[in-house]
Amino acid sequence: MAAEPPLHIVIPAGGSGTRLWPLSRASHPKFLQPLTGTLRSLLQATVDRLSPLAPATRVHVVTGVTHAAAVARQLPDVPEGNILVEPSPRDSCAAIALAAAVIAVREPDALMGAFPADHLVADPELFAVTVRTAAAVAAHGYLATIGITPTRPEVGYGYLHTGDPLPEVPGALRIEEFAEKPSYDVAEKYLASGHHLWNAGMFLWRVSVFLEELARQRPDLHAGVSRIASAWEMPAREAVLAEEWPRLEKISVDYAVMEGAAAAGRVATVPGDFGWNDVGDFRTLGDVLPADQAGNVVIGSGQTLLADASHNVIVPAGGRLVAALGVEDLVVVDTEDVVLVCHRNRAQDVKKLVDQLRDQGDTDHI
Amino acid sequence: MAAEPPLHIVIPAGGSGTRLWPLSRASHPKFLQPLTGTLRSLLQATVDRLSPLAPATRVHVVTGVTHAAAVARQLPDVPEGNILVEPSPRDSCAAIALAAAVIAVREPDALMGAFPADHLVADPELFAVTVRTAAAVAAHGYLATIGITPTRPEVGYGYLHTGDPLPEVPGALRIEEFAEKPSYDVAEKYLASGHHLWNAGMFLWRVSVFLEELARQRPDLHAGVSRIASAWEMPAREAVLAEEWPRLEKISVDYAVMEGAAAAGRVATVPGDFGWNDVGDFRTLGDVLPADQAGNVVIGSGQTLLADASHNVIVPAGGRLVAALGVEDLVVVDTEDVVLVCHRNRAQDVKKLVDQLRDQGDTDHI
Repeated sequence: MAAEPPLHIVIPAGGSGTRLWPLSRASHPKFLQPLTGTLRSLLQATVDRLSPLAPATRVHVVTGVTHAAAVARQLPDVPEGNILVEPSPRDSCAAIALAAAVIAVREPDALMGAFPADHLVADPELFAVTVRTAAAVAAHGYLATIGITPTRPEVGYGYLHTGDPLPEVPGALRIEEFAEKPSYDVAEKYLASGHHLWNAGMFLWRVSVFLEELARQRPDLHAGVSRIASAWEMPAREAVLAEEWPRLEKISVDYAVMEGAAAAGRVATVPGDFGWNDVGDFRTLGDVLPADQAGNVVIGSGQTLLADASHNVIVPAGGRLVAALGVEDLVVVDTEDVVLVCHRNRAQDVKKLVDQLRDQGDTDHI
Repeated sequence: MAAEPPLHIVIPAGGSGTRLWPLSRASHPKFLQPLTGTLRSLLQATVDRLSPLAPATRVHVVTGVTHAAAVARQLPDVPEGNILVEPSPRDSCAAIALAAAVIAVREPDALMGAFPADHLVADPELFAVTVRTAAAVAAHGYLATIGITPTRPEVGYGYLHTGDPLPEVPGALRIEEFAEKPSYDVAEKYLASGHHLWNAGMFLWRVSVFLEELARQRPDLHAGVSRIASAWEMPAREAVLAEEWPRLEKISVDYAVMEGAAAAGRVATVPGDFGWNDVGDFRTLGDVLPADQAGNVVIGSGQTLLADASHNVIVPAGGRLVAALGVEDLVVVDTEDVVLVCHRNRAQDVKKLVDQLRDQGDTDHI
């Protein structure tokens, strides 16, 4: 087997995470925030976790105009040229394809891994081992994914339907198909089947293989990002970007490329069991971050005063003292201009509050 | 029966109300705050409620140096000379006796009624009728109290043990004794007896009768306030106050005068059933203020966003949006520098949080 080419990391960093409102806001999305149990932001923790696999010089972040400056400052070791700023959000396929095309111009045979900016991983060593295995799968010419072993009948994620073991790489499996977010009954069947993994949006491939698959399935998208990438290092970059970017199809990489590639037998997965959490809402965040003896998780370094309080998630991010007395299973979030008190089991409905505010025309608080 | 002399109102306004922390603070005691379901403070509502019985020119407030200015501004119709400022807190007997002595200098035969600054009354008409009856009792030379018909075995109040009907005034009863805060078992017996009323700290008497009783039971206190009162309208007031006030015994009017007077057969009561609430904590406040259809009580005019939230007491007093989702029976108080989330049934323990902060040396937040 030939030596693997170097691995480049691509981190799409977009989306505000309305289920983490009022902490996560349009102006302060969750990936920029220290929701990690440390002072590092989710984005910084993502880069930290990947540092055994790629130095900062091979890390690329694709982000929007609003957050480019914050991303650049949070990641001072990532070269400026690796911070790819989208003129407008065009969903994940455009973001990932742009990065792939830019990397391919520089290094046509490179391996690339795409990792969301806002996930938490409890066991970074096992994560690194899993990524290395997936890189080996990618080196063999597959579009590789890392699938998460499900622990509950979750209806909020897409699933990967696994097939036979991949002969080339021990531990890897073929992917038969990508399954959309299921109903609860279907999710229960998936969990029981032993042949379904959560699709966590982590992909590894040779950039050449991905771009080939993109050209086959989405030729317009491929042509657009190729034109942009070829102008990337030239004075014409901004003009070409301004012309091409708004015409790119707004579609997720799963729909645009991965489903079709799976049907063509070109996708494989490495199951991961490294304590993954997508920080979707305050409940899942509370499930994964370290708790005190009473089960309370305090996020950030603000002042709290807890008495007979248990299993709460407390986020003192507004500079105020947050006091809790005789309460359990609550989420309490204090920010500069909003206080949220929510039952822990209702954390996923926080986005409905944001919708309600938007409907009321209250843009100050969202 | 001779015509009753005019009624003077005395409102002792002191104490910060730590069970209403963090809204009620040393610097912003509860009586200055609009905990009334309207924009009026508890103090203003007290004066409003008494206005059918006495004009503002016969209203007197006894308060401390910290709150004198705020009291003066909240009650612009009360003459400046009726705002009696204590140099330091010396408990209720000194405050009430000073007011009685000052009134007696101006009008020796006056009737006086003392009413706490921080109570709520649901039925002001019935309250006025009850006070008028008590004033008639006082005019007959008794020390009159208004006792509240108990509705639960409350251990947080003192009780009045009632005796025979008073022949002079229909509806009034003799008081056999003042009973201290009881144990729960004793409180249950009181409730069942039909002969016990809550002592709500509302007293009416002829100032001459009260001062005579004070002279009999606490001659030093009587001598001290008499010297102060005789100098009240003179340039020597401040010097005499500075000399005498710190020497006055620090004792409640119940212990100092009322218990002994009851033993001597000089106390009578008029039972009151006018929807009384002492605004002791956020639970009792929530019980008495108007609720929305889901049973939520919002105090003040701050912005709230409530979804699937019921039977909460929400106090948006910090200028922030307070959002509540899927929670019930909570107290949520937002102030400039503290957020409190507390189970409604634990509202009486809020003072323990204040104690804890004091023990930690955190005076900023108390």
